Amino acid sequence: MNKIINVDQIKRVLPRIDLVQIIEEGFAKYSKGEVVVPPVGELIFDDPPGEAHIKYGYIKNDDYYVIKIASGFYDNPALGLPSSQGLMLVFCQKTGSLKAVLLDNGHLTDIRTAAAGAVAAKYLAPETVTAIGIIGAGTQGKLQLAHLQSITDCRKVLVWTRSAKRIEDYQAFFKDTALDIEFVSESRDIAANCNLIVTATPSKEPLLLEADIRQGTHITAVGSDTPEKMELDPAILKKADMVVADSLPQSETRGEVYQAVKAGMLQRKDVIELGHIIARGEKARRDDTQITVADLTGVAVQDIQIAKAVFEQCEVEE
Amino acid sequence: MNKIINVDQIKRVLPRIDLVQIIEEGFAKYSKGEVVVPPVGELIFDDPPGEAHIKYGYIKNDDYYVIKIASGFYDNPALGLPSSQGLMLVFCQKTGSLKAVLLDNGHLTDIRTAAAGAVAAKYLAPETVTAIGIIGAGTQGKLQLAHLQSITDCRKVLVWTRSAKRIEDYQAFFKDTALDIEFVSESRDIAANCNLIVTATPSKEPLLLEADIRQGTHITAVGSDTPEKMELDPAILKKADMVVADSLPQSETRGEVYQAVKAGMLQRKDVIELGHIIARGEKARRDDTQITVADLTGVAVQDIQIAKAVFEQCEVEE
Repeated sequence: MNKIINVDQIKRVLPRIDLVQIIEEGFAKYSKGEVVVPPVGELIFDDPPGEAHIKYGYIKNDDYYVIKIASGFYDNPALGLPSSQGLMLVFCQKTGSLKAVLLDNGHLTDIRTAAAGAVAAKYLAPETVTAIGIIGAGTQGKLQLAHLQSITDCRKVLVWTRSAKRIEDYQAFFKDTALDIEFVSESRDIAANCNLIVTATPSKEPLLLEADIRQGTHITAVGSDTPEKMELDPAILKKADMVVADSLPQSETRGEVYQAVKAGMLQRKDVIELGHIIARGEKARRDDTQITVADLTGVAVQDIQIAKAVFEQCEVEE
Repeated sequence: MNKIINVDQIKRVLPRIDLVQIIEEGFAKYSKGEVVVPPVGELIFDDPPGEAHIKYGYIKNDDYYVIKIASGFYDNPALGLPSSQGLMLVFCQKTGSLKAVLLDNGHLTDIRTAAAGAVAAKYLAPETVTAIGIIGAGTQGKLQLAHLQSITDCRKVLVWTRSAKRIEDYQAFFKDTALDIEFVSESRDIAANCNLIVTATPSKEPLLLEADIRQGTHITAVGSDTPEKMELDPAILKKADMVVADSLPQSETRGEVYQAVKAGMLQRKDVIELGHIIARGEKARRDDTQITVADLTGVAVQDIQIAKAVFEQCEVEE
């Protein structure tokens, strides 16, 4: 039977899924070469400007394959519609039968991106996190912080955002938590006070500078997913003791690694793929003085893993 | 609102759609360069053997874009499942919003293929059809004949099939019609008696030979959609006064035109695209002595047109 699963049902079953576990399992299989991900399909529209992407693939010898459709139409807010929309389709890998249509409107992409941040922190954050720093207070800025709660006991948080009107919304989102959230006016205040930092903005210019980064800091950059975007001073990647990318092939064309290699601040051979670190099964940093950077551009295996898990939970629910 | 449209609802609204009109409109726009169709996305599976294809595109300045997913898993019948499955998704071209999920299980692909056969016959069949010949008695062999009923008054039909057990099913399908259907044991009997012939098989060897084709015959070949398949002796395309392809680019890599060019029996410059003929708005054959061939490999604009039309009819139904 085809299951049509709406966003309310998706949100209801998500808490039952161990997101860190499924996403790290996905990255490990990806780095082992067990994931088939063909090139992204793309449609471009001029008037109004918009784009649709089709991402799809499967883990070999798994039960399912997944197709995700995501669109971005940037004039939508004027019409009262979100810019980003989308859905995921889950098919049986043995018969091709459609198993589920997940009408998630892009929510699962947000969640799997946040879960990847938690995975990066699990393997790369210092043992003792003194304060969490979040750059950007949009959807991803909120979700990254929320998903870090399963990784660290630290409840002290500093948030920087260019958009002051987002502060109230951000505070409301976390009002029922034990988090101690402070907003800072300079992004360097984040670098000065936090040793687990997540950047989650669509910036095209560095928001953190090399000179401000202290020893023992881990930074996860999740905002840069195109050749133009960057959140980190490329010199940070030169200074870092360890640079990790979710996908080495993708880091050749986008993200912080791409920018740092282009700037001559990093050699590709010095970049480690996240799935290889996960496969070792232990923290990757040697001690709490090292600087580490994780550059997450988003990999289709995350979509595959989360779509499968949601579908399976909905099966259980019936 | 997202509409989930099941196959029963699709079958209910189909009779209200002028399929010949929407498909010929689609071909005309395709040949005018008004249709955006990126390369087909593909997933291949080894065990059990299977494949999934993602076809997608849009007509410029239209209201919608369409994504079709179709799979073929050839061990499925042993599990009581059809080999071919699929669905179509209709999105708004101005906002990216999902408008409808058409759970058609491949039925709309069958129908749009049959409708293209009717379009080819409309522009290429002789004025007076003495008998219709159908090669192949599968789903497409039935649907091609059914859709020709709106194009010609001829009710005399000869059918050839390798699979004798299909005869009963074929007769049952047309039992409430005025068609006079006769099954013949040799495909050359079709050539000898019919001047409007449709070949609809997955054959990899010619089923009609050049020597058997009479003056004044039109042949539509719909079965060959891969580089391996062929239903017509390549010499038929040399003998023909006019060779038409639904897509000139696709005919470079598949179909009867591809086979005939490869065999040195046809020059690409002598092939006309169906949409150009439609745009002229009149029968393409000069008289009832010419031999004409239409090679239909299936174009994504057919999917776009039928998905849109079904969605719009379902909107009306509400």
